[in-house]
Amino acid sequence: MIILGIDPGLAHTGWGVVETRGSLVRARAYGCIASSADEPIDMRLGRIFREISQVIEAYGPTDLAIEKIFFGQNARSAIPTAQARGAAIAACAASGLAVGEYSPAEIKQAIVGTGGAEKEQVTYMVRHVLALDHDPKPDHAADALAAAVCHAHLSRTRAIAASHIQTEVAP
Amino acid sequence: MIILGIDPGLAHTGWGVVETRGSLVRARAYGCIASSADEPIDMRLGRIFREISQVIEAYGPTDLAIEKIFFGQNARSAIPTAQARGAAIAACAASGLAVGEYSPAEIKQAIVGTGGAEKEQVTYMVRHVLALDHDPKPDHAADALAAAVCHAHLSRTRAIAASHIQTEVAP
Repeated sequence: MIILGIDPGLAHTGWGVVETRGSLVRARAYGCIASSADEPIDMRLGRIFREISQVIEAYGPTDLAIEKIFFGQNARSAIPTAQARGAAIAACAASGLAVGEYSPAEIKQAIVGTGGAEKEQVTYMVRHVLALDHDPKPDHAADALAAAVCHAHLSRTRAIAASHIQTEVAP
Repeated sequence: MIILGIDPGLAHTGWGVVETRGSLVRARAYGCIASSADEPIDMRLGRIFREISQVIEAYGPTDLAIEKIFFGQNARSAIPTAQARGAAIAACAASGLAVGEYSPAEIKQAIVGTGGAEKEQVTYMVRHVLALDHDPKPDHAADALAAAVCHAHLSRTRAIAASHIQTEVAP
Protein backbone atom coordinates (compact mmCIF):
# COMPACT_ATOMS: atom_id res chain seq x y z
CA MET A 1 0.00 0.00 0.00
CA ILE A 2 1.26 3.48 -0.88
CA ILE A 3 0.04 6.25 1.44
CA LEU A 4 0.22 10.01 1.04
CA GLY A 5 0.31 11.93 4.32
CA ILE A 6 -0.49 15.64 4.28
CA ASP A 7 -0.01 18.32 6.96
CA PRO A 8 -2.03 21.18 5.45
CA GLY A 9 -1.27 24.88 5.89
CA LEU A 10 -1.65 27.92 3.66
CA ALA A 11 1.97 29.04 4.15
CA HIS A 12 3.41 25.49 4.40
CA THR A 13 1.74 22.24 3.35
CA GLY A 14 3.91 19.26 4.27
CA TRP A 15 3.58 15.99 2.36
CA GLY A 16 5.13 12.55 2.67
CA VAL A 17 4.71 9.31 0.74
CA VAL A 18 5.28 5.96 2.46
CA GLU A 19 5.04 2.41 1.15
CA THR A 20 4.17 -0.65 3.24
CA ARG A 21 5.82 -4.03 2.67
CA GLY A 22 4.32 -6.49 5.14
CA SER A 23 4.98 -4.97 8.57
CA LEU A 24 7.69 -2.64 7.18
CA VAL A 25 6.95 0.97 6.30
CA ARG A 26 9.42 2.90 4.17
CA ALA A 27 9.51 6.55 3.01
CA ARG A 28 9.35 7.08 -0.73
CA ALA A 29 9.55 10.88 -0.75
CA TYR A 30 8.58 13.93 1.25
CA GLY A 31 8.54 17.68 0.87
CA CYS A 32 6.83 20.97 1.64
CA ILE A 33 4.78 23.34 -0.53
CA ALA A 34 5.46 26.92 0.54
CA SER A 35 3.84 30.21 -0.38
CA SER A 36 4.03 33.77 0.88
CA ALA A 37 1.27 35.96 2.36
CA ASP A 38 2.10 38.49 -0.41
CA GLU A 39 0.73 36.13 -3.07
CA PRO A 40 -2.96 36.16 -4.06
CA ILE A 41 -5.09 33.44 -2.45
CA ASP A 42 -5.83 31.71 -5.79
CA MET A 43 -2.13 31.39 -6.55
CA ARG A 44 -1.46 29.89 -3.09
CA LEU A 45 -4.36 27.41 -3.14
CA GLY A 46 -3.76 26.65 -6.83
CA ARG A 47 -0.15 25.70 -6.04
CA ILE A 48 -1.21 23.33 -3.25
CA PHE A 49 -3.73 21.66 -5.56
CA ARG A 50 -1.24 21.40 -8.46
CA GLU A 51 1.74 20.13 -6.46
CA ILE A 52 -0.32 17.57 -4.51
CA SER A 53 -1.71 16.37 -7.89
CA GLN A 54 1.87 16.05 -9.17
CA VAL A 55 2.94 14.05 -6.09
CA ILE A 56 -0.02 11.69 -6.62
CA GLU A 57 0.90 11.25 -10.28
CA ALA A 58 4.58 10.66 -9.45
CA TYR A 59 4.15 8.12 -6.60
CA GLY A 60 0.68 6.62 -7.16
CA PRO A 61 -0.67 6.53 -3.57
CA THR A 62 -4.07 4.86 -3.06
CA ASP A 63 -4.71 6.38 0.38
CA LEU A 64 -4.54 9.83 1.94
CA ALA A 65 -3.84 10.32 5.66
CA ILE A 66 -4.57 13.78 7.02
CA GLU A 67 -5.04 15.40 10.44
CA LYS A 68 -8.56 16.23 11.56
CA ILE A 69 -9.26 19.92 12.05
CA PHE A 70 -10.97 21.07 15.24
CA PHE A 71 -13.71 23.58 15.86
CA GLY A 72 -12.04 24.52 19.12
CA GLN A 73 -9.05 25.98 17.29
CA ASN A 74 -8.53 29.71 17.02
CA ALA A 75 -10.34 30.87 13.85
CA ARG A 76 -7.44 33.14 12.88
CA SER A 77 -5.13 30.16 12.40
CA ALA A 78 -7.83 27.59 11.57
CA ILE A 79 -9.29 29.42 8.54
CA PRO A 80 -6.12 29.51 6.39
CA THR A 81 -5.36 25.88 7.38
CA ALA A 82 -8.93 24.85 6.48
CA GLN A 83 -8.67 26.52 3.06
CA ALA A 84 -5.38 24.72 2.35
CA ARG A 85 -6.94 21.45 3.57
CA GLY A 86 -9.87 21.99 1.16
CA ALA A 87 -7.52 22.44 -1.82
CA ALA A 88 -5.36 19.44 -0.81
CA ILE A 89 -8.32 17.08 -0.24
CA ALA A 90 -9.89 18.24 -3.53
CA ALA A 91 -6.68 17.14 -5.32
CA CYS A 92 -6.81 13.74 -3.60
CA ALA A 93 -10.55 13.34 -4.33
CA ALA A 94 -9.93 14.16 -8.01
CA SER A 95 -7.47 11.23 -8.09
CA GLY A 96 -9.82 8.88 -6.19
CA LEU A 97 -7.69 8.39 -3.04
CA ALA A 98 -9.37 6.86 0.01
CA VAL A 99 -9.19 9.34 2.90
CA GLY A 100 -8.25 8.58 6.49
CA GLU A 101 -8.67 11.42 9.00
CA TYR A 102 -6.90 11.23 12.35
CA SER A 103 -6.74 13.48 15.38
CA PRO A 104 -3.27 14.62 16.54
CA ALA A 105 -3.69 12.31 19.59
CA GLU A 106 -4.53 9.31 17.37
CA ILE A 107 -1.39 9.94 15.30
CA LYS A 108 0.82 10.22 18.42
CA GLN A 109 -0.81 7.13 19.93
CA ALA A 110 -0.20 5.07 16.77
CA ILE A 111 3.45 6.15 16.47
CA VAL A 112 4.76 6.68 20.03
CA GLY A 113 2.15 4.71 21.98
CA THR A 114 0.78 7.71 23.88
CA GLY A 115 -1.53 10.48 22.67
CA GLY A 116 0.33 13.07 24.74
CA ALA A 117 3.78 12.57 23.15
CA GLU A 118 6.09 15.53 22.50
CA LYS A 119 6.88 16.67 18.94
CA GLU A 120 10.51 15.47 19.27
CA GLN A 121 9.39 11.97 20.29
CA VAL A 122 7.13 11.79 17.21
CA THR A 123 9.94 12.91 14.89
CA TYR A 124 12.33 10.41 16.53
CA MET A 125 9.87 7.53 16.11
CA VAL A 126 8.97 8.50 12.51
CA ARG A 127 12.69 8.45 11.69
CA HIS A 128 13.12 5.11 13.47
CA VAL A 129 10.02 3.42 11.96
CA LEU A 130 10.94 4.58 8.43
CA ALA A 131 14.63 3.66 8.99
CA LEU A 132 15.75 7.10 7.81
CA ASP A 133 19.38 8.12 8.45
CA HIS A 134 18.27 11.70 9.23
CA ASP A 135 15.41 13.63 10.86
CA PRO A 136 12.80 14.46 8.21
CA LYS A 137 12.66 18.27 7.79
CA PRO A 138 10.87 20.66 7.83
CA ASP A 139 8.46 19.82 10.68
CA HIS A 140 5.52 19.99 8.24
CA ALA A 141 7.01 17.12 6.21
CA ALA A 142 7.69 15.14 9.44
CA ASP A 143 4.06 15.64 10.52
CA ALA A 144 2.84 14.51 7.09
CA LEU A 145 5.01 11.35 7.32
CA ALA A 146 3.66 10.76 10.86
CA ALA A 147 0.06 10.84 9.54
CA ALA A 148 1.01 8.39 6.77
CA VAL A 149 2.73 6.01 9.24
CA CYS A 150 -0.33 6.19 11.55
CA HIS A 151 -2.56 5.22 8.61
CA ALA A 152 -0.21 2.34 7.70
CA HIS A 153 -0.24 1.00 11.30
CA LEU A 154 -3.99 1.31 11.77
CA SER A 155 -4.76 -0.21 8.35
CA ARG A 156 -2.55 -3.19 9.24
CA THR A 157 -4.18 -3.53 12.68
CA ARG A 158 -7.63 -3.44 11.09
CA ALA A 159 -6.60 -6.02 8.46
CA ILE A 160 -5.23 -8.38 11.17
CA ALA A 161 -8.38 -7.91 13.30
CA ALA A 162 -10.56 -8.65 10.25
CA SER A 163 -8.61 -11.83 9.46
CA HIS A 164 -8.95 -13.03 13.11
CA ILE A 165 -12.68 -12.44 13.01
CA GLN A 166 -12.87 -14.41 9.75
CA THR A 167 -10.90 -17.27 11.35
CA GLU A 168 -13.13 -17.30 14.41
CA VAL A 169 -16.37 -17.49 12.47
CA ALA A 170 -15.03 -20.10 10.02
CA PRO A 171 -16.73 -23.51 10.55
CA MET B 1 -16.81 39.95 -19.37
CA ILE B 2 -18.16 36.70 -17.93
CA ILE B 3 -17.97 36.47 -14.12
CA LEU B 4 -18.46 33.47 -11.84
CA GLY B 5 -19.74 34.35 -8.36
CA ILE B 6 -19.37 31.76 -5.59
CA ASP B 7 -20.91 31.62 -2.10
CA PRO B 8 -18.90 28.77 -0.57
CA GLY B 9 -20.18 26.34 2.05
CA LEU B 10 -19.53 22.67 2.76
CA ALA B 11 -23.27 21.78 2.83
CA HIS B 12 -24.28 24.32 0.14
CA THR B 13 -22.01 26.13 -2.32
CA GLY B 14 -23.98 28.63 -4.38
CA TRP B 15 -22.74 29.71 -7.80
CA GLY B 16 -23.91 32.20 -10.40
CA VAL B 17 -22.57 33.23 -13.81
CA VAL B 18 -23.23 36.75 -15.13
CA GLU B 19 -22.21 38.42 -18.38
CA THR B 20 -21.63 42.15 -18.84
CA ARG B 21 -22.65 43.99 -22.01
CA GLY B 22 -21.65 47.63 -21.62
CA SER B 23 -23.42 48.82 -18.47
CA LEU B 24 -25.87 45.87 -18.58
CA VAL B 25 -25.33 42.77 -16.47
CA ARG B 26 -27.31 39.62 -17.28
CA ALA B 27 -27.46 36.20 -15.56
CA ARG B 28 -26.31 33.26 -17.65
CA ALA B 29 -26.93 30.51 -15.10
CA TYR B 30 -26.95 29.82 -11.40
CA GLY B 31 -27.24 26.87 -9.06
CA CYS B 32 -26.22 25.26 -5.79
CA ILE B 33 -23.91 22.32 -5.02
CA ALA B 34 -25.31 20.41 -2.04
CA SER B 35 -23.88 17.60 0.08
CA SER B 36 -24.83 15.89 3.32
CA ALA B 37 -22.89 15.67 6.58
CA ASP B 38 -23.19 11.85 6.23
CA GLU B 39 -20.84 11.88 3.23
CA PRO B 40 -17.05 11.62 3.66
CA ILE B 41 -15.17 14.93 3.46
CA ASP B 42 -13.31 13.96 0.25
CA MET B 43 -16.60 13.23 -1.54
CA ARG B 44 -18.03 16.60 -0.46
CA LEU B 45 -14.97 18.69 -1.35
CA GLY B 46 -14.40 16.63 -4.52
CA ARG B 47 -17.94 17.41 -5.68
CA ILE B 48 -17.44 21.17 -5.14
CA PHE B 49 -14.18 21.06 -7.11
CA ARG B 50 -15.68 18.98 -9.93
CA GLU B 51 -18.94 20.89 -10.32
CA ILE B 52 -17.25 24.31 -10.20
CA SER B 53 -14.81 23.02 -12.87
CA GLN B 54 -17.81 21.93 -14.98
CA VAL B 55 -19.48 25.36 -14.61
CA ILE B 56 -16.23 27.04 -15.72
CA GLU B 57 -16.01 24.73 -18.74
CA ALA B 58 -19.68 25.30 -19.66
CA TYR B 59 -19.79 29.11 -19.36
CA GLY B 60 -16.17 30.23 -19.79
CA PRO B 61 -15.89 32.90 -17.06
CA THR B 62 -12.63 34.87 -16.90
CA ASP B 63 -13.17 36.21 -13.37
CA LEU B 64 -14.18 34.80 -10.00
CA ALA B 65 -15.98 36.93 -7.39
CA ILE B 66 -16.07 35.46 -3.87
CA GLU B 67 -16.79 36.70 -0.36
CA LYS B 68 -13.88 37.30 1.98
CA ILE B 69 -13.77 35.09 5.04
CA PHE B 70 -13.19 36.66 8.44
CA PHE B 71 -11.06 35.63 11.38
CA GLY B 72 -13.72 37.02 13.71
CA GLN B 73 -16.18 34.33 12.64
CA ASN B 74 -17.04 31.40 14.86
CA ALA B 75 -14.56 28.61 14.08
CA ARG B 76 -17.30 25.96 14.16
CA SER B 77 -19.00 27.51 11.11
CA ALA B 78 -15.89 29.09 9.57
CA ILE B 79 -13.86 25.86 9.23
CA PRO B 80 -16.27 23.95 6.93
CA THR B 81 -16.84 27.13 4.90
CA ALA B 82 -13.08 27.68 4.59
CA GLN B 83 -12.52 24.09 3.39
CA ALA B 84 -15.25 24.51 0.74
CA ARG B 85 -13.72 27.87 -0.23
CA GLY B 86 -10.32 26.18 -0.65
CA ALA B 87 -11.74 23.53 -3.00
CA ALA B 88 -13.73 26.13 -5.01
CA ILE B 89 -10.81 28.56 -5.40
CA ALA B 90 -8.50 25.65 -6.35
CA ALA B 91 -10.90 24.82 -9.21
CA CYS B 92 -10.87 28.46 -10.37
CA ALA B 93 -7.07 28.68 -10.06
CA ALA B 94 -6.70 25.49 -12.13
CA SER B 95 -8.67 27.25 -14.90
CA GLY B 96 -6.71 30.51 -14.58
CA LEU B 97 -9.58 32.77 -13.42
CA ALA B 98 -8.68 36.18 -11.95
CA VAL B 99 -9.97 36.35 -8.37
CA GLY B 100 -11.81 39.27 -6.77
CA GLU B 101 -12.46 39.00 -3.03
CA TYR B 102 -15.09 41.23 -1.43
CA SER B 103 -16.38 41.69 2.11
CA PRO B 104 -20.14 41.26 2.66
CA ALA B 105 -20.34 45.06 3.23
CA GLU B 106 -18.57 45.77 -0.09
CA ILE B 107 -21.03 43.52 -1.93
CA LYS B 108 -24.05 45.19 -0.29
CA GLN B 109 -22.57 48.65 -0.93
CA ALA B 110 -22.02 47.87 -4.64
CA ILE B 111 -25.54 46.47 -5.13
CA VAL B 112 -27.85 48.37 -2.76
CA GLY B 113 -25.72 51.45 -2.08
CA THR B 114 -25.29 50.77 1.63
CA GLY B 115 -23.06 48.25 3.40
CA GLY B 116 -25.74 47.61 6.04
CA ALA B 117 -28.51 46.45 3.66
CA GLU B 118 -30.86 43.60 4.61
CA LYS B 119 -30.72 40.24 2.79
CA GLU B 120 -34.13 40.88 1.15
CA GLN B 121 -32.94 44.22 -0.27
CA VAL B 122 -29.88 42.50 -1.80
CA THR B 123 -32.03 39.75 -3.39
CA TYR B 124 -34.47 42.39 -4.68
CA MET B 125 -31.69 44.46 -6.26
CA VAL B 126 -29.92 41.40 -7.72
CA ARG B 127 -33.20 40.41 -9.38
CA HIS B 128 -33.74 44.00 -10.61
CA VAL B 129 -30.16 44.54 -11.90
CA LEU B 130 -30.15 41.17 -13.69
CA ALA B 131 -33.74 41.77 -15.04
CA LEU B 132 -34.85 38.35 -13.74
CA ASP B 133 -38.60 37.64 -13.66
CA HIS B 134 -38.17 35.73 -10.35
CA ASP B 135 -36.16 35.82 -7.12
CA PRO B 136 -33.02 33.70 -7.58
CA LYS B 137 -33.20 30.70 -5.20
CA PRO B 138 -31.79 29.23 -3.01
CA ASP B 139 -30.21 32.09 -1.00
CA HIS B 140 -26.74 30.63 -1.68
CA ALA B 141 -27.25 31.13 -5.43
CA ALA B 142 -28.59 34.67 -4.84
CA ASP B 143 -25.51 35.49 -2.73
CA ALA B 144 -23.24 34.10 -5.46
CA LEU B 145 -24.99 36.27 -8.10
CA ALA B 146 -24.64 39.27 -5.75
CA ALA B 147 -20.86 38.74 -5.54
CA ALA B 148 -20.68 38.47 -9.37
CA VAL B 149 -22.75 41.67 -9.84
CA CYS B 150 -20.52 43.48 -7.31
CA HIS B 151 -17.44 42.44 -9.30
CA ALA B 152 -19.10 43.59 -12.55
CA HIS B 153 -19.94 47.02 -11.08
CA LEU B 154 -16.54 47.57 -9.48
CA SER B 155 -14.67 46.40 -12.58
CA ARG B 156 -16.67 48.88 -14.68
CA THR B 157 -16.06 51.69 -12.17
CA ARG B 158 -12.34 50.94 -12.19
CA ALA B 159 -12.28 50.84 -16.02
CA ILE B 160 -14.07 54.23 -16.23
CA ALA B 161 -11.73 55.74 -13.63
CA ALA B 162 -8.72 54.41 -15.56
CA SER B 163 -9.98 55.89 -18.84
CA HIS B 164 -10.49 59.31 -17.16
CA ILE B 165 -6.99 59.25 -15.81
CA GLN B 166 -5.68 58.38 -19.28
CA THR B 167 -7.66 61.30 -20.77
CA GLU B 168 -6.30 63.69 -18.17
CA VAL B 169 -2.67 62.73 -18.67
CA ALA B 170 -2.93 62.67 -22.51
CA PRO B 171 -1.00 65.57 -24.09
